[in-house]
Amino acid sequence: MGALDEGHYQTEIENEVNFELGFEDQPETVAIEDAVRVLLQGLGEDVNREGIKKTPFRVAKALRQGTIGYKQKVNDIIHGALFPEAGLEGGSGQAGGVGGLVIVRDLDLFTYCESCLLPFQVKCHVGYVPSGKRVIGLSKLSRVADVFAKRLQSPQRLADEVRTALQHGIKPTGVAVVLQCSGVFEDQDADAWTDFLSLLKFRGINVDNAHPRPSDQSWCPSQSCGRPGQANSAMTNAVLSILKSLGEDPLREELVGTPSRFLKWFMNFRNSNLEMKLNSFVRSRIDTRSLSGQTGNLKDGICSELNLSFWSQCEHHLLPFQGVVHIGYHSLDGVNPVGRPLVQSVVHFYGFKLQVQERLTRQIAETVSSFLGEDIIVVVEANHTCMISRGIEKFGSNTATFAVLGRFSTDPAARAKFLQSLPDSYSAGK
Amino acid sequence: MGALDEGHYQTEIENEVNFELGFEDQPETVAIEDAVRVLLQGLGEDVNREGIKKTPFRVAKALRQGTIGYKQKVNDIIHGALFPEAGLEGGSGQAGGVGGLVIVRDLDLFTYCESCLLPFQVKCHVGYVPSGKRVIGLSKLSRVADVFAKRLQSPQRLADEVRTALQHGIKPTGVAVVLQCSGVFEDQDADAWTDFLSLLKFRGINVDNAHPRPSDQSWCPSQSCGRPGQANSAMTNAVLSILKSLGEDPLREELVGTPSRFLKWFMNFRNSNLEMKLNSFVRSRIDTRSLSGQTGNLKDGICSELNLSFWSQCEHHLLPFQGVVHIGYHSLDGVNPVGRPLVQSVVHFYGFKLQVQERLTRQIAETVSSFLGEDIIVVVEANHTCMISRGIEKFGSNTATFAVLGRFSTDPAARAKFLQSLPDSYSAGK
Repeated sequence: MGALDEGHYQTEIENEVNFELGFEDQPETVAIEDAVRVLLQGLGEDVNREGIKKTPFRVAKALRQGTIGYKQKVNDIIHGALFPEAGLEGGSGQAGGVGGLVIVRDLDLFTYCESCLLPFQVKCHVGYVPSGKRVIGLSKLSRVADVFAKRLQSPQRLADEVRTALQHGIKPTGVAVVLQCSGVFEDQDADAWTDFLSLLKFRGINVDNAHPRPSDQSWCPSQSCGRPGQANSAMTNAVLSILKSLGEDPLREELVGTPSRFLKWFMNFRNSNLEMKLNSFVRSRIDTRSLSGQTGNLKDGICSELNLSFWSQCEHHLLPFQGVVHIGYHSLDGVNPVGRPLVQSVVHFYGFKLQVQERLTRQIAETVSSFLGEDIIVVVEANHTCMISRGIEKFGSNTATFAVLGRFSTDPAARAKFLQSLPDSYSAGK
Repeated sequence: MGALDEGHYQTEIENEVNFELGFEDQPETVAIEDAVRVLLQGLGEDVNREGIKKTPFRVAKALRQGTIGYKQKVNDIIHGALFPEAGLEGGSGQAGGVGGLVIVRDLDLFTYCESCLLPFQVKCHVGYVPSGKRVIGLSKLSRVADVFAKRLQSPQRLADEVRTALQHGIKPTGVAVVLQCSGVFEDQDADAWTDFLSLLKFRGINVDNAHPRPSDQSWCPSQSCGRPGQANSAMTNAVLSILKSLGEDPLREELVGTPSRFLKWFMNFRNSNLEMKLNSFVRSRIDTRSLSGQTGNLKDGICSELNLSFWSQCEHHLLPFQGVVHIGYHSLDGVNPVGRPLVQSVVHFYGFKLQVQERLTRQIAETVSSFLGEDIIVVVEANHTCMISRGIEKFGSNTATFAVLGRFSTDPAARAKFLQSLPDSYSAGK
C-alpha cells in the first residue's frame, strides 16, 4: 500500500464538512444547533438519546455546507478557465470558439427548497454558444450550477440564476439552462434552442409537455407528504433562527411562509404512542381487503405484499428518506388475513417518526408478525437524502435492509423464493 | 437572495482542491508539476501554450486529491458513527442491530489503476450483517469505500481493502463487497451471501457470469486503447517521480510495470503531423466501404455516419475522455464517397492528441468537409473523466458539442432532420 503518512490530513478527513477552521464555534453553527434542539423537543424527543444527541451538530454542518453557495463567487470559478479556441478556419458555419454549441447534460444537483426548507434533487442541462474564440472549461458549468444549487431555491430561480451568471461570466452568444424535476422544465425558449432541445429529446428527455413557468408548486418536496401537524411558536422561532444563520432574510417574500410549511411537514414525524394507534388501525379495518395488484400468492404457502410505500426522516441528519417495503409471510389459504391497507398503515406509522432504516425494518417485521404470523420477511428499499448531500454525492445509490423471523430466518429456500418474487427494479423515488 | 458575505469562504471556492494550506508550495506538488512538464514535452507540446500552461498544476491537484485516501484513516470515519440499535425483542430471527442484513447499492466510485495510472470508474455494492446491537451510519459505508478508492488500486485490492476495513471497524457478523467494472465482479462468496446476491440480481445486476478472481486484466483502462508508443527515459523518470510524490513505492510489485504501461497509453496522444497522416489515410482506403450498419441515408440527400467511436485526452487535466461522433452531410446519390473507415480514421486521428472536445468537433468538421462536401454537421458526445474526478462527481453527466458548415448552419430543417436520426441513447462509455 506504499508509504503512508496517516496523521496528516486530519482536518480533511474527519469532515463531512469542516469547511472552515473554527466552524464548530461560529455563532451561526451554535444558533442552528440550538434551533434543532428546540425542533427535536417539539417532536417529543429526548435530545440526549444516543442516536440523536449529535444530530443538532450534524444538521448544522449539513445545512451550512448545503447552502455554501451564498459565500461563493462565480467569477472565482470562471476566472482562469476561459480558454482560447479557434472557430472555423474558412467557409460558412459555426464551430469551436465561434458558435459551436456546447451542451453538458445530466448534471445531478442537490438543493434546498426555499418554500419548505426540504432538500430536493434536480437534473440540470446547460448549453451555451461560445463567442470571441473562447470556451469555458466544461467542469466550470457544473461548478457554477452548484454555486446556485447550494442555496435555498426554487427551480425557476435556480435556472435563472445559473443562466444569468453564465451569461455575465463567459459572455457567450447564448446560454440555456433546463432543469428537470418532477416533470417540470424551466427556462426554455423553443425558437432559439431547437438543437439544444432536440439533443435532450434524443436522450429520452421529453420537453414537449413541459411548462416553462408552472403556476403550482408541484416540485416542492413538502407537497409529497402531508398529514397536518401543529407546531408551537418556539419551533417557528427556531426555523426563523436557522434561516437567519444561513444568511437569509426571513422576510424575503418567498420565505415568509417557509417556517409554517417546513413545520407542517416536520410534525409528521413527532414521537407518538404505538399501542393507541395500532388499536385504532384494527378497529377500522372492516372491508379493506383490496388493492390486490401488488398482493402476491407465491407457491408453498408464501404470500407477499410488495411495494408498500413510505416516507421517513433520518434521525441522524433530519433529512428525508423514502422508498418501498416488501413483506413476505406464510398463509395456508393464500389470503392476507387483515388486508393490504392495514399493512400499509403499519408501514406509514413506522415511517412517520425519526428513524433509521434498520429500525424501521425491524419494527415493521415485529408488528406485522402479530397478525401475519411468526414467519415474516421484510425488505425495505430506500433512497436517502443524506447520501446525496453533505459532500457524499452518491446520487444513484440506494439502501436495502432485511428482517427475517421464524422460518424465513432458518430456511434459505423460502427466503430465496420471496426474494425472486420482488419487482426487478426499484422505482419509488427515482 | 438574502444577505451575502462573499469574501469569506475564499479558500473553499477557488478550490477544486485546496485541501491543505500551502498546497501549491509543497514539494510533492512541485515535483508532480515538474514531471508533467517533462511528459508534455515528450508529446511534442509547447508547455507555454495557453491551453496547457496551467495543466501541470491542474494535474498535480487532481492526482493528489484523487489519491488523498492514503492520508485518511477509517477509524476517524467510523468513530462516532456506530449507533446503538436493538435486535428483535422476541421470537427467532434476525433484524436491526442483531443480524439485520444492510446493503448499500450502486455507490459510484472513481479510482486510479495501479497498473497503468489511468482513472477508472466502478460501481460498488456493500453489505454487512450488524452484530452487538450496533449499526453504522449508512453514509460511512460510502466514505470508507471512497478512502480506498482514492488510492492507486486494482478492483480486487479495492474490494479486499474495503471489506477488511469494515470488518475491523464495525466488527459485524459478516461483510461483503461487490465491485462492478467492465463486467467483473469481485469478492463474492455465493454460499454466505445468497440474499445479498439475490438483491443485487433483482436490481438487474447479473452475477452468474462473474469471475471472482479474474486472471486477465480486462478492467485495466489501458487495455481499451492501444497503439504502441515510444517514450524516453526522462518520461519514465517523470512517472516514477509522480508515483513517489503520491506516497507510493515504485518498487511495489504491482507498480513495477506501471510507468511503461502508462507511457504506452500516453504516447498515443503525441502531437503529430496532420498532412502526412491524412495522405496516408487516403492512400490506404481501397475497398474499405463497409460497416453500413451505422451508415445512414436520410431523405432529401442527407446522409450520415453515426457512432464513430473515439478516445481522447483532455489537455486541461490529462484525463481521458471518450465517446462517439455523428456526422451528417449531403450526397445526391446517397453514397459516402470515401467510405466509413476513412471517416472513422479521421475521428481517431483527431482523438489521439491532447484535445478539448470543442476543438475535436471543429477539426473533424473541417477535415471531412474536404471529401464529404461543404455541408457538414458534426455532433460529438463524450463522457469526461474530469467531470467525475476532482470533487466534481457528476457521474451521469455527458457533453455534446456541435459544428455546422454550409447549409447545416443556415437550414434549421436540415439540422433537425439529422438530429432526429441520432440514436436515442448514448451508450459509449456507459
